[in-house]
Amino acid sequence: VMVFFLLNAYASLISNMDMEDRVSHLEQRLQLQEDEIQLLKAALADALRRLGYCEENAAVVNERNLSADLSGSNWKKL
Amino acid sequence: VMVFFLLNAYASLISNMDMEDRVSHLEQRLQLQEDEIQLLKAALADALRRLGYCEENAAVVNERNLSADLSGSNWKKL
Amino acid sequence: VMVFFLLNAYASLISNMDMEDRVSHLEQRLQLQEDEIQLLKAALADALRRLGYCEENAAVVNERNLSADLSGSNWKKL
Repeated sequence: VMVFFLLNAYASLISNMDMEDRVSHLEQRLQLQEDEIQLLKAALADALRRLGYCEENAAVVNERNLSADLSGSNWKKL
Repeated sequence: VMVFFLLNAYASLISNMDMEDRVSHLEQRLQLQEDEIQLLKAALADALRRLGYCEENAAVVNERNLSADLSGSNWKKL
Repeated sequence: VMVFFLLNAYASLISNMDMEDRVSHLEQRLQLQEDEIQLLKAALADALRRLGYCEENAAVVNERNLSADLSGSNWKKL
């Protein structure tokens, strides 16, 4: 019994050490991913802000072109 | 033997409870990350769609400016 | 003692198999997430590059409009 008991305790110890390593490795990788996701969120928020300026600018340019067209055609009519 | 056996069973139980807690915590964090990644994907898809409109609009504006330049220079030549 | 010992060894084996399954599943999901994050990073880098062109183009259009306005108002003054 003592030999089986020691073998079992030893196997259990090895198994727990292996599991401990894998879980520690998972915890590290998950932390790295959390950092990458935070960077992605910040970069995307910055891109959306810049995109907002682009859209605003495009709306202004389109409005100017529209009024330029209207004044241009009025001018041609005169 | 009985004492060693009980100590071993107790140590194994504590170790498994600790591992169980860490694995449960990992599962929760991974689920949260999966949700964040889904949100990031949706936000990026939306940004790419808006960027497509901006590029289309820029192409139209550039074409108009080009034809305006050409008609403008023709007008100057006359 | 032998019966308790075998029950404990069996319970420990089942618990380790269950933990092994959960940890393997976590490893797979984490790998899938890593792949998704790489795709997100590549797509975001591409979007930022296209956004850069849009901003450059908008700056050129705005400059042209500004000089067109100035020459237009000069023309009106003459």
